Amino acid sequence: MNFSIIRYILGNILYFEAAFLVLPCITALIYREEQGFAYLVVLAGCLVAAFIITRFKPKRRDFYTKEGFATVSLTWILISIVGAIPFVITGEISFAVDALFEIVSGFTTTGSSILTNVEALSHTSLIWRSFSHWIGGMGILVFVLTILPMVGGHNMYMIRAESPGPSVEKLVPKIRKSASLLYIIYIVLTLAQIILLLAGRMPAFDAICTTFGTAGTGGFGIKNNSMAGYSDYVQIVTTVFMILFGVNFSVYFLFVMKRFKQGLKSEEVRTYLLIIAVSIALITANVRESFPSLHEAVQHVAFSVASVITTTGFATADFNAWPTFSKGILVTIMFIGACAGSTGGGLKVSRIILLIKGIKKEMQLFLHPRSVKVIKFEGKPIQGEMIRATCIYFVAYVFLFAISVLLVSFDGFSTETSFTAVVATMNNIGPGMDMVGPTGNFSEFSAASKIVMTFDMLAGRLELFPILLLFVPSTWKRS
Amino acid sequence: MNFSIIRYILGNILYFEAAFLVLPCITALIYREEQGFAYLVVLAGCLVAAFIITRFKPKRRDFYTKEGFATVSLTWILISIVGAIPFVITGEISFAVDALFEIVSGFTTTGSSILTNVEALSHTSLIWRSFSHWIGGMGILVFVLTILPMVGGHNMYMIRAESPGPSVEKLVPKIRKSASLLYIIYIVLTLAQIILLLAGRMPAFDAICTTFGTAGTGGFGIKNNSMAGYSDYVQIVTTVFMILFGVNFSVYFLFVMKRFKQGLKSEEVRTYLLIIAVSIALITANVRESFPSLHEAVQHVAFSVASVITTTGFATADFNAWPTFSKGILVTIMFIGACAGSTGGGLKVSRIILLIKGIKKEMQLFLHPRSVKVIKFEGKPIQGEMIRATCIYFVAYVFLFAISVLLVSFDGFSTETSFTAVVATMNNIGPGMDMVGPTGNFSEFSAASKIVMTFDMLAGRLELFPILLLFVPSTWKRS
Repeated sequence: MNFSIIRYILGNILYFEAAFLVLPCITALIYREEQGFAYLVVLAGCLVAAFIITRFKPKRRDFYTKEGFATVSLTWILISIVGAIPFVITGEISFAVDALFEIVSGFTTTGSSILTNVEALSHTSLIWRSFSHWIGGMGILVFVLTILPMVGGHNMYMIRAESPGPSVEKLVPKIRKSASLLYIIYIVLTLAQIILLLAGRMPAFDAICTTFGTAGTGGFGIKNNSMAGYSDYVQIVTTVFMILFGVNFSVYFLFVMKRFKQGLKSEEVRTYLLIIAVSIALITANVRESFPSLHEAVQHVAFSVASVITTTGFATADFNAWPTFSKGILVTIMFIGACAGSTGGGLKVSRIILLIKGIKKEMQLFLHPRSVKVIKFEGKPIQGEMIRATCIYFVAYVFLFAISVLLVSFDGFSTETSFTAVVATMNNIGPGMDMVGPTGNFSEFSAASKIVMTFDMLAGRLELFPILLLFVPSTWKRS
Repeated sequence: MNFSIIRYILGNILYFEAAFLVLPCITALIYREEQGFAYLVVLAGCLVAAFIITRFKPKRRDFYTKEGFATVSLTWILISIVGAIPFVITGEISFAVDALFEIVSGFTTTGSSILTNVEALSHTSLIWRSFSHWIGGMGILVFVLTILPMVGGHNMYMIRAESPGPSVEKLVPKIRKSASLLYIIYIVLTLAQIILLLAGRMPAFDAICTTFGTAGTGGFGIKNNSMAGYSDYVQIVTTVFMILFGVNFSVYFLFVMKRFKQGLKSEEVRTYLLIIAVSIALITANVRESFPSLHEAVQHVAFSVASVITTTGFATADFNAWPTFSKGILVTIMFIGACAGSTGGGLKVSRIILLIKGIKKEMQLFLHPRSVKVIKFEGKPIQGEMIRATCIYFVAYVFLFAISVLLVSFDGFSTETSFTAVVATMNNIGPGMDMVGPTGNFSEFSAASKIVMTFDMLAGRLELFPILLLFVPSTWKRS
């Protein structure tokens, strides 16, 4: 392990964190909130620490897979720890474990909250929470990769670790250029949503925070009833943008490259939209009676489905009160998640497709033991290696999930609460069911459970292995 | 597909079913119960049908993988349908879906029941239920293979489909001889348990039924409170034999061959015993206070753990009333299940070991992308193919599980009920939690849910693919 280069990168990350902290400081100025001082202190601290840490250039420049994974994981942990400090200083979230849970929930774009009364927060802290979604959404490191010029030819490892989902093939060739382009797409979509929300007469602060939460598929709300109090127009715009941010960005990439035909053919995006449509139809049929009109039922169901499959986590209706069947569908799409290469979490639609194709192939093998059938995805043959890695990912995912539920269940809450709390955090969704449903929160869990779920949020966001590797002793061996 | 040979085998299966039905008929004679006539009628029907069906020898003798899998699946379906008829005729379970659920639960050694009052059943029907566990336990086809002489050199496919778990390597070489030996071991263990139970002054009828339920790791009780009313001695003997029937029979095979050292080294059996010990320790610590003495706590916890991990399903305590953490451990070992090559169900310990080793290897690959590490199991190198197949099995298992829970949840019972009802049936355990806990039953589910769970019992027992293949059109293509 080349410790010095990791130290150097993490030092530079602190410069970025300082830059991010400018936004809450400005907000504090606008709203004349004293909480701004806490953010200013942490900002200054970041600058000093960054200056000291980056004074000495790394001795060696070698940077391989394990350095890449360790850097990614440590970056998320570092920005989270630093980002939690203002909550503690202002006293708005005085318990350190809670503050860390909240900001990890932000940077991992989860949106699970330990706050019982969000509206009591200052504007300064509200925008910092929401902004952490936006930063986390596209991935700090994709961001960092477009600017930090030092990593040289080994970027690929970092993007491999960072990009959500197995399919980044189209982005790899010229990473830095691709990353800039992705970032522009991200910003354009963000601005489009803000403008559309403002056009619907949403207050500017609310429009910005809501858009941050949507873009990162995070879901932190600034109201206790999440999005329920906003107009139909605002809810519909948000529904559409949640779905848009759950699309594989390589499709937008293709659109920008004017390869529309190829973009529209995306097997993953088509499946993703199909799952959304089927889920909306099934749940609407199931809950139709509890809404005054079909139109309202569809609107709220569509919002909930979009919110859950993209792992955003906003709510306009209390889907915890819906029938078990509807809840079952929601929990299922919680696991599926959004497209790979989007800001969403979960297992990712492309993984589900690959796994199903793997099962089909296995059944073919039972019927015709000597058959050699090649699995195709997005029109291209998939190597056995890819299927194997996807399967192992799934196995590791289910195991980590089961262990987490077991640990969290020690708190003695209902099975549904323990189960869906882990679903909601590990898939970076936000709300689960029962106690952690859309009208509930995570405040009553023990510190131990909160730490487990904080870990799950990080593990889920970073595609498990980069985080799990931190616990393997050989990762830390000096090379 | 060679339909004529499948017809011929299924015809012969009916002769065996007729032979099995002799036991309830004798029981009816002893207890002078009129229900015996129903069994006699079905017995006669089996003989007539078998005679007609087997009059014409199969035109072709070719018997390949897909014929093997189809035969296995159809055999279980056939004996279940025929075995359910007496319940309907006697009126003891008049609704056909319920009767089928009950007897599939028997033959698959699940032990889930739709009966609200078991004690109302005649001795005749009680022994038929329990006997179905014993028949199913070792697998009708392992039995049939030792006697039916027609299948020729293609036995291997059948044992591959039949034997529970991935590891039957030691048994394959001389299948018929191996099957006879396994069957002798099974009978000796069965007799040993009956004798020990009788020595504890258990009534003969109860001892026989209890042993049938233990040997098949089935779990149908003949009392409404399952095993709670029996003496400590009986409970302890049953605990030990549940664990013994959950051991990989190839270990007993090695013992008979006087290869004690190799038998004692079994990685799977050691892991299995370790999981049992750890689970007992953790749950005892968690529930200690609700029992008057440590001794009683250990006894009931050990019984419950043995019952659940071996997927037997007997109960002496209502573990549904235990804290969430203890229930979490029980649900976890429900999924793990017993050893491969035992009469138990679940994922099997050897699969869990292989999956964990697969994850470890994957993490090594992240750290050292070019490393070539061979996975070993039971001291032998495992081919990549085996890991892949195990992973795909796991994926198919989780998918079928999720779809089943979704379908069952349509009935609107609690999430815990829907979830654990599917866990309990698909892993061939018997009781789940909440409504289907040790003091509950499956009677209140809709017919549709009962059909889903009947399917799950068969799929779980036959290692998924043989049953799933029945739904693939190409299975049925004429060759």
